[in-house]
Amino acid sequence: MVDTNHTFADSLLHPRSVAIVGASGDPAKTTSRPQRFLRKAGYAGTVHLVNPARDEVLGERCHPNLTALPEVPDHVYILTNAEPAIDTVRECARLGVPVATILASGFGEEGPEGLQRQQRLRDTAREGGVRLIGPSSLGVVNPRNNLLLTANAAFDEELLQGDLFVASQSGSIIGALVSRGKARGIGFAGLVSVGGEADISIGTLCAATVDDQGISAYALFMESLQHTDELADFAHKAHQAGKPVVVYKLGRSEEAAALSVSHTGALAGADSESDAFFRACGFARVDQLEALIEAPALLRKLPATPRKEPARVGIITTTGGGAAIMVDQLATRDVKVVAPSSTVLDRFAEAGVPVAPNLIADLTLAGAKHELVRSAIEIMQNSGEFDLVCFVIGSSARSNPELAVKAIAERAEGQVPLAAFALPDALHTLRLLDNAGVAAFRTPEACADAIAGALDRTPPTVRADTLHGAPAPTTSRILDEAESSRLLADQGITTVDSVVLDTTGTTEPDLPFDYPVAVKALSEALPHKTEAGAVALDIPDAASLRTAITRITTNVAAYDPTITLGEVLVQPMAKPGIAEALVGYRVSPAAGPIVLLAAGGIYAELYSDSTVRLAPVDTDTARDMIADVRGLGTLSGFRGADSGDIDALADTIVAISNLATDRPDVIEAEINPLTVGTPGNGAVALDALVRVTGR
Amino acid sequence: MVDTNHTFADSLLHPRSVAIVGASGDPAKTTSRPQRFLRKAGYAGTVHLVNPARDEVLGERCHPNLTALPEVPDHVYILTNAEPAIDTVRECARLGVPVATILASGFGEEGPEGLQRQQRLRDTAREGGVRLIGPSSLGVVNPRNNLLLTANAAFDEELLQGDLFVASQSGSIIGALVSRGKARGIGFAGLVSVGGEADISIGTLCAATVDDQGISAYALFMESLQHTDELADFAHKAHQAGKPVVVYKLGRSEEAAALSVSHTGALAGADSESDAFFRACGFARVDQLEALIEAPALLRKLPATPRKEPARVGIITTTGGGAAIMVDQLATRDVKVVAPSSTVLDRFAEAGVPVAPNLIADLTLAGAKHELVRSAIEIMQNSGEFDLVCFVIGSSARSNPELAVKAIAERAEGQVPLAAFALPDALHTLRLLDNAGVAAFRTPEACADAIAGALDRTPPTVRADTLHGAPAPTTSRILDEAESSRLLADQGITTVDSVVLDTTGTTEPDLPFDYPVAVKALSEALPHKTEAGAVALDIPDAASLRTAITRITTNVAAYDPTITLGEVLVQPMAKPGIAEALVGYRVSPAAGPIVLLAAGGIYAELYSDSTVRLAPVDTDTARDMIADVRGLGTLSGFRGADSGDIDALADTIVAISNLATDRPDVIEAEINPLTVGTPGNGAVALDALVRVTGR
Repeated sequence: MVDTNHTFADSLLHPRSVAIVGASGDPAKTTSRPQRFLRKAGYAGTVHLVNPARDEVLGERCHPNLTALPEVPDHVYILTNAEPAIDTVRECARLGVPVATILASGFGEEGPEGLQRQQRLRDTAREGGVRLIGPSSLGVVNPRNNLLLTANAAFDEELLQGDLFVASQSGSIIGALVSRGKARGIGFAGLVSVGGEADISIGTLCAATVDDQGISAYALFMESLQHTDELADFAHKAHQAGKPVVVYKLGRSEEAAALSVSHTGALAGADSESDAFFRACGFARVDQLEALIEAPALLRKLPATPRKEPARVGIITTTGGGAAIMVDQLATRDVKVVAPSSTVLDRFAEAGVPVAPNLIADLTLAGAKHELVRSAIEIMQNSGEFDLVCFVIGSSARSNPELAVKAIAERAEGQVPLAAFALPDALHTLRLLDNAGVAAFRTPEACADAIAGALDRTPPTVRADTLHGAPAPTTSRILDEAESSRLLADQGITTVDSVVLDTTGTTEPDLPFDYPVAVKALSEALPHKTEAGAVALDIPDAASLRTAITRITTNVAAYDPTITLGEVLVQPMAKPGIAEALVGYRVSPAAGPIVLLAAGGIYAELYSDSTVRLAPVDTDTARDMIADVRGLGTLSGFRGADSGDIDALADTIVAISNLATDRPDVIEAEINPLTVGTPGNGAVALDALVRVTGR
Repeated sequence: MVDTNHTFADSLLHPRSVAIVGASGDPAKTTSRPQRFLRKAGYAGTVHLVNPARDEVLGERCHPNLTALPEVPDHVYILTNAEPAIDTVRECARLGVPVATILASGFGEEGPEGLQRQQRLRDTAREGGVRLIGPSSLGVVNPRNNLLLTANAAFDEELLQGDLFVASQSGSIIGALVSRGKARGIGFAGLVSVGGEADISIGTLCAATVDDQGISAYALFMESLQHTDELADFAHKAHQAGKPVVVYKLGRSEEAAALSVSHTGALAGADSESDAFFRACGFARVDQLEALIEAPALLRKLPATPRKEPARVGIITTTGGGAAIMVDQLATRDVKVVAPSSTVLDRFAEAGVPVAPNLIADLTLAGAKHELVRSAIEIMQNSGEFDLVCFVIGSSARSNPELAVKAIAERAEGQVPLAAFALPDALHTLRLLDNAGVAAFRTPEACADAIAGALDRTPPTVRADTLHGAPAPTTSRILDEAESSRLLADQGITTVDSVVLDTTGTTEPDLPFDYPVAVKALSEALPHKTEAGAVALDIPDAASLRTAITRITTNVAAYDPTITLGEVLVQPMAKPGIAEALVGYRVSPAAGPIVLLAAGGIYAELYSDSTVRLAPVDTDTARDMIADVRGLGTLSGFRGADSGDIDALADTIVAISNLATDRPDVIEAEINPLTVGTPGNGAVALDALVRVTGR
């Protein structure tokens, strides 16, 4: 009999009763941990032990199976091997157990056999209406009610309660975060190792808990990007609930991305795609591990906001050297540090706080006196000159928290959010600030990392309906250049004029445009025309055009005898523009439809200078993308030269990105080059390649 | 009477007696701290108090001046204001006090008056044979003998003794490092706030202590690069003594560099110059603050070595997730992580340690068992496949140090150095490893930062004799292009043919080379010829050449009426090469002579794609520079295109860098562009600009 008031989230984090299947009495065994941890922590719910091999475990009664239990438990933690685990899930289904968590590995990550086993596990659960965490889950922990359904040795100690919820694709990380949080005074409202995500993905898990009043923020540790539609759904729910999300994702390097593949058996998306996805979700991505638990305090105070102008950070300090470190850390992350205006300096003077004009407000001369520091912060917060104020605390953070630290804590609720970094080792001070609601940081790097991530956050724009993944490449074909151009022209993209000529044609070609022209082989079997000698440029007249066509036909035959070239494409020679760009679109298996912008030519590749967003994008986003690509700096009139038609480039980006909604049959589209003229003269696609589904 | 056995370093760090001038009895006053700290810590030497205003301070006898003391103290700490401080230094000189440390500010950093005051201070000291620390020095601390000559509040606690010596241009940092070291179990052999470096620079200070047996490594915190000749001298002494140096320098961002100027009154060198300088010194530069105290343990085990091949790092772990973080952190810092070979995997199997083939050696399945972990590390260390082994420790680091941690500690002296990172919070474990001689790290970022810095270190190549700074720009002049080219040709650089023609010449120009040619105005007053319309290209014949010369003359007159153009330079048109490069040389006020390489054209600027070394450089270094510049990737046959004459480019870099020794009169030289042909076809300077001293 299902209790409708008791939701999945309740059974997961607030179960009235749990069962441990495969419980062991041998303390040396991992499988003995959940029972020991639950008892030691004093979990108040009922704990049932299941093990066919024994009647009692560590002095408690043990049942042969779930069916033999006096009640149907809310949450079952299955510690057996893979195959028996599937049988137990079947039993859960029969009994109507709402949630089961599975420790065993040997599923998805272990080749075809594992994948097949994982499929059976999923089917068994879904048909039976059991929700699954795992497989390969180190468990589910809720410090609020001492629920310690975990085999992770790290939980063999007292936990700190808090309102941060952690979901991790790596089991060992939840233990590490608990201990690092404890040292920092940061507690948790729950920690879940999602494992292989056979049923419940990290997105589904978090979405299910978003109404839990005890949770105020989310920290995600991710190894690979998958189930993005569910993450997108969570992103919107979290935003509506006003609960910020910070994410640390492996794969900044290709090495780690590859590792992640072998590690979880999931297909890891390229890092630029992950960036694009998290940005569209309104998640703050951090690169310093400790920022994952320290950043939420800042995010709670800094709601995601779209910005036309870069955010302004003010720095106030009692240590010049420490503040200089912070300026360096922020500036290298492209965060704009703003100097206090003369108005602010005057207010400082009136308040009896001598501060020299400088990029930072240095109170060293004034000294770390409580009243002075307090009014200085207040002046900064109320000046309207800063979107965030960062206080770098000197030695008083360790020896005299009643001075600067107290003042900072008292300004926690000021006009503008505060972040604080203590230069010396001062954990007690950081805790004091955390408790006062001031985001506090142990290292300057984590502080700058969190500030950069927080200021970058915008409300979620991701749309679950556009997150359709790419079909198997076998079921797709490449359109030839003429078809490709037509398809892009239909999207509203300006493509260069062209006519198709028969290679065997003997009559004088009659062109709708003037010479000189360019001629290219027209064949979907020739994606790389230049290598095949299938392109000729600057052809001055009809006679030379004929010769060129003949030469191209010969070249192609020599390059690939299987191709008989029937047609060529003739285009007018384009005038050189202000810049050449590559504009691409593809449906990524990980992130769904994405749009890419890069500088044309070899430099994009030499400098890996490109930027990615989820498609579709609006004009503002397209403009952000243009600003991201350094090689397109010429468009804004580099070194006093002419500037370029940025509007036209932006329109082209928007148009190609709309393929995501207009043309689900398009898997890949690339314009290379798109030549961008001077303002008003538009952007023209000179070459195009499109791949569509079907044969 | 001077005791010759008692060196400057002895008086500085091991004084038999100290005097505190300006001691105060008011505990609220900064000036009361040194006496209180010395007494509290139980400094064994004699402490003399000097203050004309009182007979006793905090219950101890106080003298009116130094002359009234019963003995000449080894080290005097002057706490008075600027002007009285100079008088006290004069008194020190008269008495023969070897070392004085000055707290007062109001010298170099405060405009012309301050500079003049600093000059008087320096002269007074040097004429009198007193060595000075400061001004603006927060003091000199030696935890080995409880010498606490400091006004920094952070020292009001017990200090941890160790063998790391810290010298800092920021006073507040020494306090912060002491507390952070204490938390980590890292002790110090001395900490000195060098302040304004009026007499003793950071380099002189460290060089003087290099024979101190209690010091095994140096950590420098720098705000600006100055007194580089003394730093260079220290670099060689430290290398000979086998004592590694790690440096953290502000100014990664222009914002912080600017801040550093205002902060210390010193001219901060561009960050790329600092990098070049530290590299030439064999210092390891780190970017994570905590790496400054954590890295030395690693550097002690990893002597600076020149490498032809990139160093290979092996990763072994009991936490897959944690190791993946480390791979990511190392790879993004261009450190090469190498997978264990099948041979190593076989040895693992023989030792009963099941490890799956992967980039990392993951012992999770084997479990964190002491014996297994120990043999696994031994196998990695003895394999000859790694230059460094990094162990990432999971939850056992916190809960069961007797397992993996003990094994790591026992392998401290293995074939290959070990670095360890603990994923959970586990300070006690880090201390245990520190004490065993294993470099241990609290964050993955600091660990990767230290490893990257350690593996990058090479023996010092810097030469103090080449570190002459640039003279004032007023005493220099620019040579015209013809003179510039001749000067560079004398260095052995291939320059394009050219003839100088008289603009008023009426006879047919007789050229030693064929048309087409390029013609440029020849005038040292026209460094930017293109803007002045003073360049014409692709001139087909003599007649057009005449017209071009007339047009250029008119353009120049219109551009700048004060210039009467007498001559033009005519060159053959150069064939386009594989790549165009900018090769520059300049004498930097901060770092001395440097050589710069960048890609030609606008891309170097758009991508800030350039690399800098101290001049002169050898061929190997020149090749490293070429590899550093991404825009020159075309030289190695990018995308199957022709490769370029890298030898010729390297020779050109070496030749221009030799100006450092051959031509001290040259302040600046730039070849832009240098066109690099296919292998064997050399590199030709198409345009050159040289600035020399004198009027």
